[in-house]
Amino acid sequence: MTNALTFERIIEAYDAQRSRYIAEWMELLRFESISTDASYHATCRACAAWLVQHLSGIGMQATLRETSGLPLVVANYRGGGPRVVFYGHYDVQPVDPLEAWDSAPFDPQIRRDRMYARGAQDNKGQVMYFLKAVELLIQQKALPYDLTIVLEGEEESGSAGLQSELPALARELQADLLLVCDTGTPRAGVAAITMGLRGIVHASFTLHGPTKDLHSGVHGGVVRNPAQEIAHLAASLHNPDGTIAVAGYYDGVEEPSADLRQAINGFPLTAAQYEALIGAPPNGGEQRFSMWERRGVRPTIDVNGIHGGYGGPGGKTVIPASAVLKLSSRLVPGQDPQRCLDLLCAHLRERVPDGMRLEIEDASVGGPALALDPHSPTVQRAREVLQQVCGDALVLMWEGASIPIVAGLAKALGAEPLLVGFGLEEDNIHAPNESFALDQFRQGFLYSALLLSRPS
Amino acid sequence: MTNALTFERIIEAYDAQRSRYIAEWMELLRFESISTDASYHATCRACAAWLVQHLSGIGMQATLRETSGLPLVVANYRGGGPRVVFYGHYDVQPVDPLEAWDSAPFDPQIRRDRMYARGAQDNKGQVMYFLKAVELLIQQKALPYDLTIVLEGEEESGSAGLQSELPALARELQADLLLVCDTGTPRAGVAAITMGLRGIVHASFTLHGPTKDLHSGVHGGVVRNPAQEIAHLAASLHNPDGTIAVAGYYDGVEEPSADLRQAINGFPLTAAQYEALIGAPPNGGEQRFSMWERRGVRPTIDVNGIHGGYGGPGGKTVIPASAVLKLSSRLVPGQDPQRCLDLLCAHLRERVPDGMRLEIEDASVGGPALALDPHSPTVQRAREVLQQVCGDALVLMWEGASIPIVAGLAKALGAEPLLVGFGLEEDNIHAPNESFALDQFRQGFLYSALLLSRPS
Repeated sequence: MTNALTFERIIEAYDAQRSRYIAEWMELLRFESISTDASYHATCRACAAWLVQHLSGIGMQATLRETSGLPLVVANYRGGGPRVVFYGHYDVQPVDPLEAWDSAPFDPQIRRDRMYARGAQDNKGQVMYFLKAVELLIQQKALPYDLTIVLEGEEESGSAGLQSELPALARELQADLLLVCDTGTPRAGVAAITMGLRGIVHASFTLHGPTKDLHSGVHGGVVRNPAQEIAHLAASLHNPDGTIAVAGYYDGVEEPSADLRQAINGFPLTAAQYEALIGAPPNGGEQRFSMWERRGVRPTIDVNGIHGGYGGPGGKTVIPASAVLKLSSRLVPGQDPQRCLDLLCAHLRERVPDGMRLEIEDASVGGPALALDPHSPTVQRAREVLQQVCGDALVLMWEGASIPIVAGLAKALGAEPLLVGFGLEEDNIHAPNESFALDQFRQGFLYSALLLSRPS
Repeated sequence: MTNALTFERIIEAYDAQRSRYIAEWMELLRFESISTDASYHATCRACAAWLVQHLSGIGMQATLRETSGLPLVVANYRGGGPRVVFYGHYDVQPVDPLEAWDSAPFDPQIRRDRMYARGAQDNKGQVMYFLKAVELLIQQKALPYDLTIVLEGEEESGSAGLQSELPALARELQADLLLVCDTGTPRAGVAAITMGLRGIVHASFTLHGPTKDLHSGVHGGVVRNPAQEIAHLAASLHNPDGTIAVAGYYDGVEEPSADLRQAINGFPLTAAQYEALIGAPPNGGEQRFSMWERRGVRPTIDVNGIHGGYGGPGGKTVIPASAVLKLSSRLVPGQDPQRCLDLLCAHLRERVPDGMRLEIEDASVGGPALALDPHSPTVQRAREVLQQVCGDALVLMWEGASIPIVAGLAKALGAEPLLVGFGLEEDNIHAPNESFALDQFRQGFLYSALLLSRPS
């Protein structure tokens, strides 16, 4: 038998232990766990080891589980009742441009009731409030679930390790519910349940021309210029109306139904508010869809990086030996990630000018899109909990972002995913000065504790 | 009266003083005189001061002449006879990518009979052999000319200072001959006289979108992506047949005559040899012209740099706040540089997508193209000297490169330009591991001394 904690008791407990929670969160943030850069992999492992110790400390059976890449942190607690799996990640995005940070990205600092650090929100902040909620429930013998926590170290770099573990996990572990707190809400005071995530594939393309950088006076007009030709390759990916120009890319993509469009377009942020927030109007992408439809249920190909030739102050009359294009593509239901990656690579390969060579690196299938059912009992249950925590303001979200592994993990576990997170646009995840509001951290804690404090 | 030095005596003198010449050349190469980057301007000034002292040391009246930018080094010698002006530059190109250098760019080293350093050839090496030749002639009282040496510090960054001094120079100084040694030859053992230089304009374009870097999942397809749009801007500059797509850019450009085409196409390097030399075939630019016509007498717009978003290892799902395009354009006779720069800027401005902002920086008019007369007595004289130094192998060259100030300086001085240099393709000017063959340095010395040792 477990005790049932009241919401009031949960609030009291948070207020009493808040400073310790924050201190431990800062400890976690100090690990430079950048998974996209191999030179940080030792630090990623140190971060994972810290988490194993921490989870043991709160009363779970925690182990490091090796994968083909960075290790998983897996922890179990037997509270009886249905099996709940929590998924999160301990790796973070790179930090460049470093000079744009107001404080060092791995030296967490609290300013204006926000925690500033790389990973402050994505995903260490949201993992930490969940761990602290579980800690409380275990302390109070108030966790009526068999809970498994799985934290991976490669979410920002394609989840290859966890992906390769999925068959083994599927044999060992079946679950009713897959909890994920790696999402956000449209603004403070509004709760959100994520109904859709886009899939993702990505790759880097290097176009090679001459064997060395050349003088653009002596060779300009004679030889093909990789910096120029990479621009042509990048430009070839889209049509003037913003649609993707890669042949076959839309195969299997369904037009959104009227119901779905209505739900998606109910997102409570106007174009003017969006522009005020990010400094540019929401006028990119496929022009025949609304901004929220484009984000929620339409695929994209995004140039994440284009680099060739001189980039310093002033000018330099050079034809570079090569140029680089870093692409990612967001996918929607109906698109097979591997097929899309193949189409994208083929599109670029076919357009390589005579005498040049295209090198493809880091080609990676993140995962397919995920679309959830707004009418399921789990979503109803989450609505009730969120109403208690945040009041009546609640939206269903189609986020646009990807958590590549969630669809695969849910399928392997036979579990229904529930995606509720407390991130805000102003958190600047994936950008300089990432932060997470202490108040959002608190709401995440209250939601997690309340959700798991009652048997389903 | 001056003595006349024989060719044999000049050779003897070189061989006797070679090691001192090289040591002094290395001293000059140690100055990090990168004019395109303001953080090196103090070093540029130190380099200029060193040259003033050095020129005084060889018996000239040398002074530093301030300009709107970096100073000129001006030195005079009264030998009687016609007025000859020598033009060169003491500034050098930036050194990035630094990691591609086999030895530090400002720590000159001799390997395999070549001097390796930034500026080893362009232009410090070619300036130095000239100064040493003048030193010899002055020592031997064998310089039957009124000689003025003008060395500028902004050739690699647009020559703005010297440009602004041209009216004053025109009042103070008229000359018969303008000597320039900032050019090259097709290969060792072949002498070359440059008959044409292209003009140049350049500018940097920054396309601004959102106020900060954004997550490409949350915002991909919603907002316009500067890295993507900068590629579209770059791609808009050319048509599929390689012609320039900027409206009006070809106005005033004449089709090369059959005679000119024949002379240009006589350049002794086949397409296969070119490809072997640089690792890529000569198949860029306007497809209806030959490789040498495209280089010699056709205009280009070159992407010297394109940069936006993530460029490190692995990937990063970011939409950058801005992206940069660095362009230069080579011009031919008939094109007005300022007009071309205006057309180029207007072309890009008109194509800026709604909601984005284009910032234009470092927009600069280098100078117009220069076309010389192959049949002038000066060219005949140079042919004779070069025949003595190098033997019968001699070509007329249309280089493709620009020495932006030469046309303006020649006009201001009322002087006929004579462009003879000893650079080779393998010198890697403007690229990592720049070098200059000691034997080419020697030939430059012999040519300079012999040319000036006899009255015209």
